[in-house]
Amino acid sequence: MQKAILIIQCPDQKGIVAAVSDFLYRHGGNILEVDQYVDQEARQFFMRASWELDSFSLGRERIYEAFQAQVGESFQMKLSLHFSSSITRMAVFVSKESHCLFDILARHHAGQWEAEIPLVISNHEQLRDVVEAFGIPFYHIPVSKDSKSEAEQKQLKLLKEYQVDFVVLARYMQIISPEFIRHFPNQIINIHHSFLPAFVGAKPYHAAYERGVKIIGATAHYVTEELDAGPIIEQEVARVRHHHTVEELVSMGQDVEKVVLSRAIRAHLDRKVSVFKNRTIIFY
Amino acid sequence: MQKAILIIQCPDQKGIVAAVSDFLYRHGGNILEVDQYVDQEARQFFMRASWELDSFSLGRERIYEAFQAQVGESFQMKLSLHFSSSITRMAVFVSKESHCLFDILARHHAGQWEAEIPLVISNHEQLRDVVEAFGIPFYHIPVSKDSKSEAEQKQLKLLKEYQVDFVVLARYMQIISPEFIRHFPNQIINIHHSFLPAFVGAKPYHAAYERGVKIIGATAHYVTEELDAGPIIEQEVARVRHHHTVEELVSMGQDVEKVVLSRAIRAHLDRKVSVFKNRTIIFY
Amino acid sequence: MQKAILIIQCPDQKGIVAAVSDFLYRHGGNILEVDQYVDQEARQFFMRASWELDSFSLGRERIYEAFQAQVGESFQMKLSLHFSSSITRMAVFVSKESHCLFDILARHHAGQWEAEIPLVISNHEQLRDVVEAFGIPFYHIPVSKDSKSEAEQKQLKLLKEYQVDFVVLARYMQIISPEFIRHFPNQIINIHHSFLPAFVGAKPYHAAYERGVKIIGATAHYVTEELDAGPIIEQEVARVRHHHTVEELVSMGQDVEKVVLSRAIRAHLDRKVSVFKNRTIIFY
Amino acid sequence: MQKAILIIQCPDQKGIVAAVSDFLYRHGGNILEVDQYVDQEARQFFMRASWELDSFSLGRERIYEAFQAQVGESFQMKLSLHFSSSITRMAVFVSKESHCLFDILARHHAGQWEAEIPLVISNHEQLRDVVEAFGIPFYHIPVSKDSKSEAEQKQLKLLKEYQVDFVVLARYMQIISPEFIRHFPNQIINIHHSFLPAFVGAKPYHAAYERGVKIIGATAHYVTEELDAGPIIEQEVARVRHHHTVEELVSMGQDVEKVVLSRAIRAHLDRKVSVFKNRTIIFY
Repeated sequence: MQKAILIIQCPDQKGIVAAVSDFLYRHGGNILEVDQYVDQEARQFFMRASWELDSFSLGRERIYEAFQAQVGESFQMKLSLHFSSSITRMAVFVSKESHCLFDILARHHAGQWEAEIPLVISNHEQLRDVVEAFGIPFYHIPVSKDSKSEAEQKQLKLLKEYQVDFVVLARYMQIISPEFIRHFPNQIINIHHSFLPAFVGAKPYHAAYERGVKIIGATAHYVTEELDAGPIIEQEVARVRHHHTVEELVSMGQDVEKVVLSRAIRAHLDRKVSVFKNRTIIFY
Repeated sequence: MQKAILIIQCPDQKGIVAAVSDFLYRHGGNILEVDQYVDQEARQFFMRASWELDSFSLGRERIYEAFQAQVGESFQMKLSLHFSSSITRMAVFVSKESHCLFDILARHHAGQWEAEIPLVISNHEQLRDVVEAFGIPFYHIPVSKDSKSEAEQKQLKLLKEYQVDFVVLARYMQIISPEFIRHFPNQIINIHHSFLPAFVGAKPYHAAYERGVKIIGATAHYVTEELDAGPIIEQEVARVRHHHTVEELVSMGQDVEKVVLSRAIRAHLDRKVSVFKNRTIIFY
Repeated sequence: MQKAILIIQCPDQKGIVAAVSDFLYRHGGNILEVDQYVDQEARQFFMRASWELDSFSLGRERIYEAFQAQVGESFQMKLSLHFSSSITRMAVFVSKESHCLFDILARHHAGQWEAEIPLVISNHEQLRDVVEAFGIPFYHIPVSKDSKSEAEQKQLKLLKEYQVDFVVLARYMQIISPEFIRHFPNQIINIHHSFLPAFVGAKPYHAAYERGVKIIGATAHYVTEELDAGPIIEQEVARVRHHHTVEELVSMGQDVEKVVLSRAIRAHLDRKVSVFKNRTIIFY
Repeated sequence: MQKAILIIQCPDQKGIVAAVSDFLYRHGGNILEVDQYVDQEARQFFMRASWELDSFSLGRERIYEAFQAQVGESFQMKLSLHFSSSITRMAVFVSKESHCLFDILARHHAGQWEAEIPLVISNHEQLRDVVEAFGIPFYHIPVSKDSKSEAEQKQLKLLKEYQVDFVVLARYMQIISPEFIRHFPNQIINIHHSFLPAFVGAKPYHAAYERGVKIIGATAHYVTEELDAGPIIEQEVARVRHHHTVEELVSMGQDVEKVVLSRAIRAHLDRKVSVFKNRTIIFY
């Protein structure tokens, strides 16, 4: 079954749900999912609706324009429209640690996601074997303080060449420049190895150990210019005890990181994430 | 702000959301929440919608009839309509254990629920003091094998007298007869002290200990004729270890029970529960 | 069954377990629990052991001295010795919110803890009725910026008069002075309404909402001079979504707070908490 | 650092901890971990102790005998002794689903476990590529109703040939015969895709859907003759909602299964599991 997904944001007012559902009904759309949210303080309305395309009377290429004309403009809507038939192209950036990468490759291999992974980019050589065993091109682009800008240029060129839609930083451990981010606004997902906003920055497990917390966590978020401060997509935690060493926290944390990252990727791929004022709306 | 809540169930077909939202829009209703669900296998549609009453052009007493005539009948809808202004009247049945009762009374006292507790009924005297300290009438109706039917008649009489809407069995530990249940279909919530369907029946913590489970749980469900088999509203769990004795499982389980029961009561009071084929739909 | 509990801290070296267990064996003690921990970095050894007193050949009043002479001194041990027969006296400080207080009173009423609550102190009058319904003296000691020092003197006088062993700040919402803390080192438990170290200070639920976290939490810790920075005893979390308002976060958080606080109190009462370098060791 | 691990079970009596720790102290052992448990009802004592071998005055080959003579016999102990230097050899049995297998291979590849995986056995061909990409021999042994006994003979021959210590059924989906089990008592770990004892047998996610549970789970257990009834090593759960289809439950469940299985393998490899009366003791 082919389906269309519409994501809407507009100032809140009466009649939005009626107008959207009426449009879908008039064109023969069988609604599969509807989820809406109103930010009462900001008076903003958010909606995600999906419907079957098979019986829909409008061709794919005409839907956006028709919806804008008949509904969107009068409500000042910001729209995005997606089709389940279009496979998202996702690049994965890694450094030396393999746990998130393996988890992503395994899910991809099992056909769990409607996504292709056209390439993996790393600042180290370590994970080349793993990636190539899955038949995926691996690019080693070293990054030093001096070569950073040049390295990012190479990365961007590859992402363009491979027509990449979004980027997953699977424990990439490098800070991304504002220039790079501007090419992929809310299209770069990072996994941070702490329960943000606790323990921003490097070595969060060491900091967690020092503070003596009883629960550690991981956070998947969109990358923005401010370090570890972008909109949070997903978080998860694990219980720890005093006897766990920093190394054990790292190991236990890795299990949390890969779960959190995969859930965030899934939500992004399913077009279930909207961003407003540095917070995410996660639709059902 | 006064609001209305509409719960719908009908055979699935195109145009339901459009028809409902159009009705609300035409009468000036500002939609606050919409959640819908389609049981694809059974081809049944479920919806919960709430809207502000202040600006609504129909008086409360006319809404049900108008909606039926304009929308409900053509879709063969089963409807229920509620108003936030009507305080639900909830009876609590207890036996000897106080943890769930206290939790309910504390939440009621803190004004956390839009509910009144006109009376508490028990087959024992133990908790009279607690209940009366909160200024709530306490009725002791002993139950023995022989007096059960008679006891239930007394209970029903009190529930009628106090105009009770629904009943919470807060560790009441007695089996309710089919006759009694028929007076309150899907209006009796029981807390069972296991993660159903594991450990149906009496002494579930003993059974959990014997089986050596690593996680215990509790289940809130509507009471139906089959013991511990009614539609599940909420469940929660707690991690246990080999060194925990049965007594410790009981104690840890109590903390889970009261949390689960209070969440189920909250969902019921907020009209967020629909029942279909012995399963619950829990709306947002 | 009467039992003794011994808590030990000393520099790590070989033979400690052997020396302690030999002492207990020689005097006829049947060991019930042993848990030990070595901080490898600081080379410190920690142990908690409990044993039956009935068959023990040393009288209670002689155990401490005998253990010191035969074992403790040669290992430079810091000791503390407790008996299950001595009921801990716990004062509760509250402000206006009742959820933690009710939970504590309910557990106390159910006999869940080996503790007495000789008094409750509040800077407001609101919760007097609740407390007195449980037959516990309630003292209203208002606190203003100017009267703070004087108020603390009154509090300390009451705590002395009632022979209080430790203090629970059950959402007391006032900063405790270093002078006060010095009277109860690692004997004041506070419940902070965030997952520390995230959202230190006032209004953590507002801050959590602004940051758009997907999980909120609560932290029970011993009070030290630095605000919200004392040794963490227990933490717990709850999952939240974008649609939850600050008020809903507060309400969901209250359920977490009372669970966390009760677990911390339980650990403290069971003598299962040692503090070292601002971290807690929680024994089994 | 090389370490030795001793697992003890014996009738409970005074002096066991003293005797064990004295033995270790007398031979220069620096204790790293001690955990003990008493089953009060069965009057059985269980203990796990580990110590550094470097400074130990007894050679590895003499420890068992010396301990038996000096301590074990007088307490009627059942013993097992392990050395951190001996790498456990673990066979993995799979069918068609890859999620648990990938997780195991990824952890093995990252050096997370002190284990070798000398071979993978499957009743299907599907996962050959995955396994061989990791450089591990893959054996396809088809199993039909008639060939089952013969297939198990081939499997046992391979396990012997490869000197396998224990077997992981990573969603193998075949019932193991009592004859096979007798070769590996408490050395076969199975992952069952439900929260046992709920939903024993095939299709547990379908059963969970039908029952309308709000939480699903997975269980790792040792395989015994009675199906899905062996000693539970680890369990974990995930929250689900009414709108999740059976297929979604399967997918969400897979994430739980692989976590649970890996934790159980870790506990087994670390010699932290004892079995008594169909329950496990999981040491720290």
